[in-house]
Amino acid sequence: MKKKIVIVGIGYVGLPLAISLSRFYEVIGFDTNVNRVKQLKNFKDINKQILRNKLKESKIKFTNNIKDIRHSSVYIITVPTPVYKKNKPNLSLLKDASKTVAKTMRRKSIIIYESTVYPGLTRFLSKSIIEKISKFKLNKDFLLGYSPERINPGDKKNTLNKIVKIVSGSNEDAVLKIKEIYSKICRKIYVANSLEIAESAKIIENIQRDVNIALVNEFYKIFSELNLNFDEILKAAATKWNFLKFNPGLVGGHCIGVDPYYLLHLTKLKKIKTEMVSSGRNVNDNMHKYVVQRINKFANKLSKNPKNIKILIYGLTYKKDCPDIRNSQSKRISNILDKKYDLTTFDSLIDRSDEKQFPNFKKNYSKNNYDIIFVNHVHTKDGKKYKFEKILNKNGFLYSLENFK
Amino acid sequence: MKKKIVIVGIGYVGLPLAISLSRFYEVIGFDTNVNRVKQLKNFKDINKQILRNKLKESKIKFTNNIKDIRHSSVYIITVPTPVYKKNKPNLSLLKDASKTVAKTMRRKSIIIYESTVYPGLTRFLSKSIIEKISKFKLNKDFLLGYSPERINPGDKKNTLNKIVKIVSGSNEDAVLKIKEIYSKICRKIYVANSLEIAESAKIIENIQRDVNIALVNEFYKIFSELNLNFDEILKAAATKWNFLKFNPGLVGGHCIGVDPYYLLHLTKLKKIKTEMVSSGRNVNDNMHKYVVQRINKFANKLSKNPKNIKILIYGLTYKKDCPDIRNSQSKRISNILDKKYDLTTFDSLIDRSDEKQFPNFKKNYSKNNYDIIFVNHVHTKDGKKYKFEKILNKNGFLYSLENFK
Repeated sequence: MKKKIVIVGIGYVGLPLAISLSRFYEVIGFDTNVNRVKQLKNFKDINKQILRNKLKESKIKFTNNIKDIRHSSVYIITVPTPVYKKNKPNLSLLKDASKTVAKTMRRKSIIIYESTVYPGLTRFLSKSIIEKISKFKLNKDFLLGYSPERINPGDKKNTLNKIVKIVSGSNEDAVLKIKEIYSKICRKIYVANSLEIAESAKIIENIQRDVNIALVNEFYKIFSELNLNFDEILKAAATKWNFLKFNPGLVGGHCIGVDPYYLLHLTKLKKIKTEMVSSGRNVNDNMHKYVVQRINKFANKLSKNPKNIKILIYGLTYKKDCPDIRNSQSKRISNILDKKYDLTTFDSLIDRSDEKQFPNFKKNYSKNNYDIIFVNHVHTKDGKKYKFEKILNKNGFLYSLENFK
Repeated sequence: MKKKIVIVGIGYVGLPLAISLSRFYEVIGFDTNVNRVKQLKNFKDINKQILRNKLKESKIKFTNNIKDIRHSSVYIITVPTPVYKKNKPNLSLLKDASKTVAKTMRRKSIIIYESTVYPGLTRFLSKSIIEKISKFKLNKDFLLGYSPERINPGDKKNTLNKIVKIVSGSNEDAVLKIKEIYSKICRKIYVANSLEIAESAKIIENIQRDVNIALVNEFYKIFSELNLNFDEILKAAATKWNFLKFNPGLVGGHCIGVDPYYLLHLTKLKKIKTEMVSSGRNVNDNMHKYVVQRINKFANKLSKNPKNIKILIYGLTYKKDCPDIRNSQSKRISNILDKKYDLTTFDSLIDRSDEKQFPNFKKNYSKNNYDIIFVNHVHTKDGKKYKFEKILNKNGFLYSLENFK
């Protein structure tokens, strides 16, 4: 009999994982989002990661019914770990998933977390929720693992099968069993010495990106104030053998814009001082304000009634080649500018159901002319057909943080 | 007749440059440091960059006599740009070098700066010193260039001839002429569009390293407080395709520990807010205090009279494989610990004349045993012969920021 694996949370992380595992195991995809389950049953992935045909081929059973996931040998939890308004970790999805697993697991189940957490959280959830509800004892009655997801939405190169997958377990037996599962679907497995080492490794990867983007964002602001072309500076610096190529941009999404707050939550609790991690978040989280400032400056130069100034925001998802709009700073910019100017917004990758979240989203945006165009990003599928100059009024401003030429 | 090139400042940057150029031009190496000139005349480079034989072969004329450098076609200024105690840029060497050039140049001279500066400084020095003293006019009577040095002391791979050399000039003629000179000695030339772009490129390269090391230093402190082995975390994280491999360490020297202050000086003047650049400096500049704290904690555990606790600081230069002790944080640590403990210091690469700058420098350090050994770095030439465990007392502490196993 094939091992049964339940994936709890079938979003950006869970779905590709379910698809890969379903080639070797009986896989059940569980999600509390009824809509998502319904769509997947109809072979539609609005995240545009998995094609219709692949979903049809796979034998994954999608469900939101807790009865369908009882007594499974393996549970893999891949729910998002977002933050509340004030950037405090919102653990409710993780806790709910843990409860669901605790209620449905059997003796000898293996529970693996893939969600990004701060070090110690996996063990804490196991102790405070799984052991309490199930009455099972860790390592005696069940095994625990942490294997951080490294899904990079929109990245066609570093896919699940090609990356090095970190695994860790609550004891040697757990490590062996978890390693066996992931070896089927990932080319290389790296065993971390503890759950906490694996948790820490994941969170510092994301923070390192956040801080490096924050640094170029700060550079961008400094050199713009000095009236120097930052793009030229970056190109020159990039000729050094060890210069790291990061571009200024609006950090959003569910990953590098959020995960640092998880570590910051822990360091606050433990009264450990941080400076780099918190500054990185501060710079990146406020970058949209700088863009708004710049757009206001352009508008002032046009010296019209603001309500007559036509502005286009092009590119609304949190990053290029990804339809995800969670924590999109483009959205924040749109909401601010909408109050003052004649605003149009557009993105070619966004799901139809998300369009209404943006003010004046217009499919036919290119039939108008604009005084100011802010280009957040251009998706690869848009190709080079977008000639923004053509829809820009004379004396208008075409603005973007990166150079799109 | 061969073109005559004067190098002003023949230290870590000037000497390798002089050696390379001397294969194609008549080169004069000028330095106000009488000792340095005398040593070089005797074919001795205490920086250990250039071997005796190479110095003998070269036909460079070393001098501290201003009369020897009159009416040269090209002047290249490579003096250090240090900071004063409170981290304000100390431009005195740069100004003195500019005065020296202004007094000795002729009509049509080309003046190139290689020293790291903040954007705008090259043009400012030309206007405020060179034009004033020489009475020549920029671009009419003389040409100006900026070509940032990318010398990486101790690095045998990225040497002058192999790197991409950025050049920039005050006009097209300057660019052409400067490009011609450097094409002789560097494999690839990159022309930046202005002096300021070239100046900015150089300074952001160094700041990027400083900030990335500051980030891992902060991580190191966080995870040490959480009792997690940071070395294991780094190794696990390094399995991600885009993780950047930086190690915690004591940033010192004349480059990445100093240059950020140059940009910070300018941003302060211009009232531009910085967060990443300043935090980076703050974390790295205080890292030695953290090391002292840790050593104090170890010492407390040994619960002896501090004066009886034997401590060895191994590795005193500011970085591995480089005899330079400028801004060495190992020195700061030694000075603090020396007041309290029975301290011994040692470094295998340091010049004999520098030894007295460290408390209780002992060539025969390995004849004693120690309660605490702090290993800052192990130079490549030391090989693996250093078995610190052999000279460590039972229950003693062997401590280092990096993992030297």
